[in-house]
Amino acid sequence: MSGNTFGNIYRLTSFGESHSEAIGGVIDGCPSGIELDFDFIQNELDRRKPGQSIITSERKEEDKVEFLSGIYKGKTLGTPIGFIIKNKDIRASDYEHLKDVYRPSHADYTYRQKYGIRDYRGGGRSSARETIARVVAGAIAKQILNKTGIKIYAYVSQAGDIVLNKTYRELDLSQIDSNIIRCPDSIVAEKMLKKIEEIRKQGDTIGGVITCVAKNVPVGLGEPVFNKLHSELGKAILSINAVKGFEYGSGFDSAKMKGSEHNDIFYIQDRNVRSKCYGQLRTYTNFSGGIQGGISNGEDIYFRAAFKPVSSIMKEQKSVDIEGKEITIKPKGRYDVCVLPRAVPIVEAMTAMVLVDYYLMNLTTNYTNETTDYTDE
Amino acid sequence: MSGNTFGNIYRLTSFGESHSEAIGGVIDGCPSGIELDFDFIQNELDRRKPGQSIITSERKEEDKVEFLSGIYKGKTLGTPIGFIIKNKDIRASDYEHLKDVYRPSHADYTYRQKYGIRDYRGGGRSSARETIARVVAGAIAKQILNKTGIKIYAYVSQAGDIVLNKTYRELDLSQIDSNIIRCPDSIVAEKMLKKIEEIRKQGDTIGGVITCVAKNVPVGLGEPVFNKLHSELGKAILSINAVKGFEYGSGFDSAKMKGSEHNDIFYIQDRNVRSKCYGQLRTYTNFSGGIQGGISNGEDIYFRAAFKPVSSIMKEQKSVDIEGKEITIKPKGRYDVCVLPRAVPIVEAMTAMVLVDYYLMNLTTNYTNETTDYTDE
Amino acid sequence: MSGNTFGNIYRLTSFGESHSEAIGGVIDGCPSGIELDFDFIQNELDRRKPGQSIITSERKEEDKVEFLSGIYKGKTLGTPIGFIIKNKDIRASDYEHLKDVYRPSHADYTYRQKYGIRDYRGGGRSSARETIARVVAGAIAKQILNKTGIKIYAYVSQAGDIVLNKTYRELDLSQIDSNIIRCPDSIVAEKMLKKIEEIRKQGDTIGGVITCVAKNVPVGLGEPVFNKLHSELGKAILSINAVKGFEYGSGFDSAKMKGSEHNDIFYIQDRNVRSKCYGQLRTYTNFSGGIQGGISNGEDIYFRAAFKPVSSIMKEQKSVDIEGKEITIKPKGRYDVCVLPRAVPIVEAMTAMVLVDYYLMNLTTNYTNETTDYTDE
Amino acid sequence: MSGNTFGNIYRLTSFGESHSEAIGGVIDGCPSGIELDFDFIQNELDRRKPGQSIITSERKEEDKVEFLSGIYKGKTLGTPIGFIIKNKDIRASDYEHLKDVYRPSHADYTYRQKYGIRDYRGGGRSSARETIARVVAGAIAKQILNKTGIKIYAYVSQAGDIVLNKTYRELDLSQIDSNIIRCPDSIVAEKMLKKIEEIRKQGDTIGGVITCVAKNVPVGLGEPVFNKLHSELGKAILSINAVKGFEYGSGFDSAKMKGSEHNDIFYIQDRNVRSKCYGQLRTYTNFSGGIQGGISNGEDIYFRAAFKPVSSIMKEQKSVDIEGKEITIKPKGRYDVCVLPRAVPIVEAMTAMVLVDYYLMNLTTNYTNETTDYTDE
Repeated sequence: MSGNTFGNIYRLTSFGESHSEAIGGVIDGCPSGIELDFDFIQNELDRRKPGQSIITSERKEEDKVEFLSGIYKGKTLGTPIGFIIKNKDIRASDYEHLKDVYRPSHADYTYRQKYGIRDYRGGGRSSARETIARVVAGAIAKQILNKTGIKIYAYVSQAGDIVLNKTYRELDLSQIDSNIIRCPDSIVAEKMLKKIEEIRKQGDTIGGVITCVAKNVPVGLGEPVFNKLHSELGKAILSINAVKGFEYGSGFDSAKMKGSEHNDIFYIQDRNVRSKCYGQLRTYTNFSGGIQGGISNGEDIYFRAAFKPVSSIMKEQKSVDIEGKEITIKPKGRYDVCVLPRAVPIVEAMTAMVLVDYYLMNLTTNYTNETTDYTDE
Repeated sequence: MSGNTFGNIYRLTSFGESHSEAIGGVIDGCPSGIELDFDFIQNELDRRKPGQSIITSERKEEDKVEFLSGIYKGKTLGTPIGFIIKNKDIRASDYEHLKDVYRPSHADYTYRQKYGIRDYRGGGRSSARETIARVVAGAIAKQILNKTGIKIYAYVSQAGDIVLNKTYRELDLSQIDSNIIRCPDSIVAEKMLKKIEEIRKQGDTIGGVITCVAKNVPVGLGEPVFNKLHSELGKAILSINAVKGFEYGSGFDSAKMKGSEHNDIFYIQDRNVRSKCYGQLRTYTNFSGGIQGGISNGEDIYFRAAFKPVSSIMKEQKSVDIEGKEITIKPKGRYDVCVLPRAVPIVEAMTAMVLVDYYLMNLTTNYTNETTDYTDE
Repeated sequence: MSGNTFGNIYRLTSFGESHSEAIGGVIDGCPSGIELDFDFIQNELDRRKPGQSIITSERKEEDKVEFLSGIYKGKTLGTPIGFIIKNKDIRASDYEHLKDVYRPSHADYTYRQKYGIRDYRGGGRSSARETIARVVAGAIAKQILNKTGIKIYAYVSQAGDIVLNKTYRELDLSQIDSNIIRCPDSIVAEKMLKKIEEIRKQGDTIGGVITCVAKNVPVGLGEPVFNKLHSELGKAILSINAVKGFEYGSGFDSAKMKGSEHNDIFYIQDRNVRSKCYGQLRTYTNFSGGIQGGISNGEDIYFRAAFKPVSSIMKEQKSVDIEGKEITIKPKGRYDVCVLPRAVPIVEAMTAMVLVDYYLMNLTTNYTNETTDYTDE
Repeated sequence: MSGNTFGNIYRLTSFGESHSEAIGGVIDGCPSGIELDFDFIQNELDRRKPGQSIITSERKEEDKVEFLSGIYKGKTLGTPIGFIIKNKDIRASDYEHLKDVYRPSHADYTYRQKYGIRDYRGGGRSSARETIARVVAGAIAKQILNKTGIKIYAYVSQAGDIVLNKTYRELDLSQIDSNIIRCPDSIVAEKMLKKIEEIRKQGDTIGGVITCVAKNVPVGLGEPVFNKLHSELGKAILSINAVKGFEYGSGFDSAKMKGSEHNDIFYIQDRNVRSKCYGQLRTYTNFSGGIQGGISNGEDIYFRAAFKPVSSIMKEQKSVDIEGKEITIKPKGRYDVCVLPRAVPIVEAMTAMVLVDYYLMNLTTNYTNETTDYTDE
């Protein structure tokens, strides 16, 4: 039921199967008058596309976005922005051998059971090609965020068992795109690349972790009690293919901490500022991950997303076909040894969409900007 | 903006501050004709309430739910079910000393900045008292699920650094409520209790992890691509106070696994059954956590939620007041050393609401129950 | 499915049957910091309540609203506002004779068939008592609108065949509440009262028309193409019990007009004003009813709502009972000869809710307030 | 804010300006396994397109729909159906003279004020070209309804002052498309055509009324109290360009009726049938218009929609330009003298979408199909 729309005010409705005519989407609720940088949008798509480097799938997807509406003379009209990306490199024959097969840990079986029918070509709707639409909507969201000063940085912090043991504060986030693994530490990036090469030789795949940071988020974003900022971020990130876990701030590590260690103590950044937004209070530590009570507190927002190894491997596997017969699936076609570098722009896109959406929603809360006098409270 | 409604078809809209007249909610979209067991509902509230055991807050909350509408002669009418739980044990004076204070890692500061006003008594809307409404709606959801055979079990699998090192399959889930910590392994439960006693003596708090399992979930629940079953579960669980992380199936551990290890191989449970729902295929392993492509596959669904240590501690802490002065907060009142046993029914409630909601949504997909012939596909 | 929530940002979720414990609701998305006038809210309820004058039902409903949350020291907190109105005057025995009966043109039969169960007492959820919650939410909406200058006036413009043949511009709208029929023309009001007395003697009921005007609505409210301002007003008004038709501006009369007659010609109100909102353009005529292309244009918004005669009459009627036997229903109890005076505050309430909701939504469109230069366009 | 999505389960999200690259939409929530008749869909578009007869606009729009996703081998996949219709006949130069002009009773001024920017070519988003997407989604909805037996018939019942003085029961609804005016009474159709010719010679336009009937609607569709079936139909119809009023059943005429005349008396159609759906009760009259308490009662649903004369006329008109100067607009280009014949399929499409949506929603209410025993009630 209507699971293909994301967002409340800034909303993406997406469509498209891996091998349908096109992937596309409609962005509704985009504020009017935003001047768009189309090169930036295309660049974001290029960061996501397969075949961009030796470690990713070789499928040659051009992934050129065509905007069909909602923009006039380079500016958003406030009307819905329709867009498509044609599926050009369609080699359905690559998938003919999978027509009758339920591949392990893919969505073949569940789609078939739920809908009674499936488009087996390239995984159909369950293919990660669907995320193209997210990247387009995210690239526009980022341009809206630019006006607010909010910046988003995602990077690969783990690939298989190679772990980047630094916090984001210890890293130069401008270096994320300086290598094909999108890990801002060049030494660790090198190790990850070696690991990926090793796994490729085995015909296998590995998972990993992406860390994401949002800076300069104003105080006040988040809509408790069900639409807390981190709940919506969690939903957004968990909806990306292959994501198995989400944690923000101290995350799972908080489980073993004491309250006295975990509490973030406030201090006054500037005694002369008493503004309501970008409030004057700061915290010494940031175990809260920039969100308290589900509302941004002005500190950096950061979270981590766990990705499983993708299911398509270059090894023989046992499975069952749609007739109920036991079969052996033989590897064929193109695949991603480690999908994480390509997932970086997707994580950023989902984060940008959530932040724009919650930024817009927050314009309607206390919109008269009235603050109860301190003495009244 | 409207962050107090949860669900698509089965929807809870909740209201209430810690010290307002009442906590309450409205359940809309509840199917008609469900005969309710009111003792069960009250029992679920009792599992959540403070003061139920020596390790939880001593606040004496009776938490008696009063149903105001939507039920006639014990059965649901299909009309909205309004309910309230009066806030009886209101000792506002307990909080008078916090009137001008921003407590560390509470929502005092963010609520004040977002809304320009806050109800400082007991944390106002950010208090976990709000979860009472969730437990009521979850208790009704569980009764709807009973008709489908779906069962939900949550338990404490970690308290501070005491970790239950068994999977749910190795445990007797009927023993969850056999101890006050709600850990089904009595030996580990004992260790957890000792740890909690130790922390209490320090005036401190600890976090932990709750594991949740849903059994007998039919194949087909989940609405890709944004409302995947695990995305919605993630959002639901992350919206609970103090939750910092969510992972399902292999979770964060999957990051270091290879595809060939992680893939769940299918087998045929019963060659004679070819039903569309509760499909005949099973998997040997279940790293997928019962969900593939965002849709339940008939295996057990399981996930873990990380809880931070609660912020209210019985130790002096530095902070800042609303005038911008540095202050020291002195401990006072009642508190929970480890909130996890009380969070168990809340995790179950949110899970039950999601499953009922997605069960109902799935009734509208392929409702004609037509399956494309195998040979057609 | 979830039909008991109204609105997008400013949202009312309502509950309650005629004879359940209470009628109530939750208002979510109400901006924070609004100082409430509780006497005004109660006064609006008094305008709706039965027994307020000789022409309305004699049921003595006190209809005292109790606010349970979301308000602190008289101001809105930005959190959900829960409220209830207890059903005190419950004389279920009045309805015992209707237990097995499907009354003509009531919702007895449809509720029974849809839900498989019904609360027959006083019409259950289909009773107009449900509108109490609307009046509460509308009374708060009106107070938000006060800050914007928007004013709403509804009045009875037809009762049975007595028609007020004046446009709203020819009337003194401050006189609406000067008589019990709520018709601002005292001479026509007198005729209506006589007609109602005549109908009462017959044990019958009559319908009528309510006209509503909203003044000082800023330019820009409305969300094309599906949520045009008049579409949402239409839905809001048509959801009120007994409403059978809605028209705005020229309405059904426009069908026989020519374009050259119907077009509203623009003129410049003030050559020196070029503000984006409350724009400087006006129209000589206002067949558009203050809405063009689904967006308010700054002129008065006006519309008309047709009410059927209520179905409960003091005459014997043939019907069928739930066993399928033909029966004769004997009149009993209290009834409204003409419900329109009581419906006036309900029409205003729904209008106020729509206008607040669309006002808040409009804050997120072109929120940067950028206007393309005239010469650029 | 997000005004371009219609529906709850069966949802259309539409996009496109009159002269953007394409008009299009995404249908989400369409049940899977529906075999589509593409010729039927194209035929519906042809019924809407301009230039189809001498009385409509001469713009040559091919309006060929291209489906991009959600369909495989002619059947719906249950995934979102993306589609586009390219805007081929783009003669922007036709509109260059309107670049700086606010045309009377168009949306030029309101769009400019709301969004700060507008696409002046052909009315941009406010153009009725937008309704193409509705017709596509409606044509698919009709095919879903076919499986339930529901049939929808709309026709022109008034054009200017030529009124068809028969109820739908007195007409042969199979004759609607037998003439270009889409009035099933050939004699009245002839009069309407003469009237339209007369108006065309004057360079003017006229409005009219469309009547719509839905037959074989099962009992139980409608979601009180805010989403009553007629409220949603009203919203749907009022969102169509040029619609100024909506009434169902007795409509505005009910205002002057007495309750004793207006009540629809029940009778038993078949004493042997006691099914819960398509219940055995019928009514002798049908002033209720097939809906009681907001829920369908099994009788024919019928309603009327008033259309204003379209604003584009072939006469000189005074207006104001964007610089605030008084100007005279000279007629140019193509226009519709009477838009109603083309609006017939649009009214049907919106009705079909509402009925499918409410049909699907109703599957989730009382889905266990349990009926309280008559004796229990």
